[in-house]
Amino acid sequence: MSQDQTRYRFTAQEVDLEVLRERAFNFRWAEQAEGVIPLTAADPDFSTAPPIRDALTRYLARGPLSYGPATGLPSFREAVAEDLRRGGVDASAERVIATDGAASAMFLIAKATLRPGDEALIFDPVDFLFARSVSAAGARPIRVPFTRTGGVDLDLFARLASRPKVKLLCLCAPHNPFGRTLRAEELQEIAQIARRRGLSIMSDEVWQKISYERPQPHTASLPEASRLTYTVSGFSKCFGLAGLRIGYIHSPSEEAHERLLSASHAGDTAFGASTLSQVAAEAGLRDETGWLEAWLAHLREARDLTCDRLNQLPGLHCERPEATYLASPYLDLTDPDTRGFNSELLTQFILERARVALVPGSPRFFGAGAEGLVRVCFSTSLELLSEALERIEGAWGERSAWLTERLTEPR
Amino acid sequence: MSQDQTRYRFTAQEVDLEVLRERAFNFRWAEQAEGVIPLTAADPDFSTAPPIRDALTRYLARGPLSYGPATGLPSFREAVAEDLRRGGVDASAERVIATDGAASAMFLIAKATLRPGDEALIFDPVDFLFARSVSAAGARPIRVPFTRTGGVDLDLFARLASRPKVKLLCLCAPHNPFGRTLRAEELQEIAQIARRRGLSIMSDEVWQKISYERPQPHTASLPEASRLTYTVSGFSKCFGLAGLRIGYIHSPSEEAHERLLSASHAGDTAFGASTLSQVAAEAGLRDETGWLEAWLAHLREARDLTCDRLNQLPGLHCERPEATYLASPYLDLTDPDTRGFNSELLTQFILERARVALVPGSPRFFGAGAEGLVRVCFSTSLELLSEALERIEGAWGERSAWLTERLTEPR
Repeated sequence: MSQDQTRYRFTAQEVDLEVLRERAFNFRWAEQAEGVIPLTAADPDFSTAPPIRDALTRYLARGPLSYGPATGLPSFREAVAEDLRRGGVDASAERVIATDGAASAMFLIAKATLRPGDEALIFDPVDFLFARSVSAAGARPIRVPFTRTGGVDLDLFARLASRPKVKLLCLCAPHNPFGRTLRAEELQEIAQIARRRGLSIMSDEVWQKISYERPQPHTASLPEASRLTYTVSGFSKCFGLAGLRIGYIHSPSEEAHERLLSASHAGDTAFGASTLSQVAAEAGLRDETGWLEAWLAHLREARDLTCDRLNQLPGLHCERPEATYLASPYLDLTDPDTRGFNSELLTQFILERARVALVPGSPRFFGAGAEGLVRVCFSTSLELLSEALERIEGAWGERSAWLTERLTEPR
Repeated sequence: MSQDQTRYRFTAQEVDLEVLRERAFNFRWAEQAEGVIPLTAADPDFSTAPPIRDALTRYLARGPLSYGPATGLPSFREAVAEDLRRGGVDASAERVIATDGAASAMFLIAKATLRPGDEALIFDPVDFLFARSVSAAGARPIRVPFTRTGGVDLDLFARLASRPKVKLLCLCAPHNPFGRTLRAEELQEIAQIARRRGLSIMSDEVWQKISYERPQPHTASLPEASRLTYTVSGFSKCFGLAGLRIGYIHSPSEEAHERLLSASHAGDTAFGASTLSQVAAEAGLRDETGWLEAWLAHLREARDLTCDRLNQLPGLHCERPEATYLASPYLDLTDPDTRGFNSELLTQFILERARVALVPGSPRFFGAGAEGLVRVCFSTSLELLSEALERIEGAWGERSAWLTERLTEPR
C-alpha cells in the first residue's frame, strides 16, 4: 500500500446516510422506506474518490463550461486509450467516443451493428441491458447459458453463432451477476468463432477494474479479437460516478468508429457526455494516489464477509465472486424450509422481515438463468453490511412460516 | 442593480483565452486557427456564474454521486416547475423530464409525437435542430417563412397547418437566428390553430431568459396552448452550461409525459442528465444574487456595440435583436461592392481577411430563408468584440477585390 492509499477509508463514518437518502436513486436509499438497507443497484455508498472531487473543483475554479466536442474531450479520449493500452489493447484515442454511460453505449453499438431481423448472442443470465439494447435495434437476442463456475458452454456458443442471422456476440466481462472473470482461453475461442464468421463483438467491461482473483483481460487485447471488438465501459462501478452518466466505446476500426457516429446524433449536438463527467472519469483513470487499490482492498473484505455469512444459512449457497461487488446467493431447494421459494419470494421475504432490499434474479432483470438467485451489492461499509447480514440471519428461521402464510393469503 | 450584482463583471479580464483554447469546441476557440476570434456557436466566453460554481463545489464536497432518477432529481424538477409558474405556466414538477440538453429533448418530442409520413411545421429560417429532429422521427418538416421584423405569416401558417398530415407545430421563441420575441398575440393565434386541429406544439424556449425589449411569453402560459404545448429549454444560453448538457421538457399532460418516457430509454438507464448538471442548472434558476441581470446588462451593451458598428458598413444591414446574443447582419445586394456575395462567401471573406469566424446563414444550418445573412454571436467582452469589429471594418474595403480574385481562381 502506498502512503497515500492509507488515507482512504471506507468505514461507516464515510457513509453519509442523510445525503444518500437525498441522492441515491435506482432502488437505493432515496427510494426505500425508512429503515430499509438497500443492497440493490451496483453503486457505492461512499463519496466520490477525493482525487476526482479535487479535479472537478479545480476545473470549476478555472472557468467556462463551454461546448465539448461531440466525440469527447481530447484529454478524456487519450486517458481512455492509455488505460486500454496498459491492458494490452492496440487502442487509439481517435477511436474513442465518450458516451453518457455504458447503457447508452450499448444501445448505440446495437443500433450501428444490427438490423431489424438480425440476431445477437447474449449470456443467460446477464445484465438486462444486453437484451434491451439488442431488442431496441429491432434484432433478437439469443441466449447462451452461462454458469457460475463453468462460464459459457463454448460448443453451444459456437453452434448458436453459426445461425445465419447472428451478427453480434455480446460479452459481459467480468460477468454480471455471477462476478466471474472470462478467461483468456474462453475469449480466444470466442474471438476465433467471430473471425471465422465475420461477426462483431460487443464486450461490456464495466466491471473490468473490480476483480480480486485475476485480472479480467480486455477482449480487444486478444489479437484475433482486436479488429472485431467494440469495447464498452463506464465509470459508475469503479469510481462511483453513476450520477454523472459517463462511459465510452472504443471501436475496432476507423470505419466502425464512423459507423457509430453516424448512428448517433453526435453531429446534431443531441448526443454526448457532460464535460465535467469526462473530467471526473479522466481524473479517476489518471489517479496515482492508490485510491482504486484501497477501494479494492475494502471490497475484498466486504465480499468475504458477505459470502462467509450467507453461506452459513441453511438452504442458501453463495460462491465468492471473482470480480464485481455483487454476490449472487442462490436457493438450495433440497432444504425443506427453503422449498417453495423463488427469487421474487426470497427478495420479498428479506425485505419484509429483514428490512434489507435486494435485487431478485428474475427474468425481467437477468433472463431465465437467474431464477433462484438474489443479487446482493456489497459496496458499503463493513458495519452496514454486518447489520444487513445480521438482520437476514435473524429473520432466516421464519422463512418457512412466512412462505406458508404468504401462499395461503387470500388473493 | 442589487449590491451583489455589481460584483459581476464581464470584461476582457474575465475572458481566459488560454482555458478557452482548451475547452471551447463547436467551432469556437479550441477549433479555430491561432489568432482567429470566433463569434460562432452561441456560447459565452465567460466563466460559469459564481453562484453555480459555488453550488457545484458544495455538492461535491458533500459526497456520493449516486444514480439519479430517470426523470431528473426532484429538486431540479421542482426548480423548473417554479420557474415556469413564475412565467405564468400551470406547471408541475411531475411533468418535467431532465434531458441531456435541449437538442436531445427536441429529438425525443419529435419521436413521441410524430410517425413516419407525418408532417411538422417549422420556421424558415430557424435553428437546424428543428429539421433534424423532425426528420429523425421519419416525418417531414414543412417550412413557414419567418421574417426579421414581421415574424411568421399567420395566414400561411394556418393554411399549412391544415394539411392533413401535419401533427406538430414547432416554435422557436425567441427566434434563432433573428432574435425576435414571439408576441402573445401571435402565440394566441397559433394556439387557436393547434386547438382547432388537435395538434401538438413544441415550443423551444432556450433563449427565453435572454431578451432585452420585452419578455418572451411562455407558449404554455396561454390558456389555449397549455394543454397542447411541450416546453423545451436548456441552460447553455442563459447560464453558459453547454458543456454540461442539461435541458428539460415540460409536458402538457400526464399522458404526454408518459408518452415521452416510453419513447426514451429512461427505464433502461440509457437516458437522462448528469446529476451534477442538474445541480448546476437548479443553482442558476434559484440564484438571487442578480447574476442573470448583470449578464443581461452586459449583453445589451454588446448587442448595441455590435449592431451599431456593423450598420456603419456599406452593403450590410443589422437590426438590433430583441432577444438572444446573436446578431444577423445581412447583405444589401444593391451595394455594388457587395454584389456577388452570399452567406458562405461573406463568412469566408471575413475569416480570411479579418480573422473572425462567423456562422453562415446557409441552408444547412438554418434553411433557405437565411441566405444572405451571417450570424454573429456577441457573448464576449466589449474589448474582444471591438477588436473583432475593427478587424471586419478594416477588411471591409477589400471585399470586392477579394471576391473578384476568389471567383477567378482556377478551380
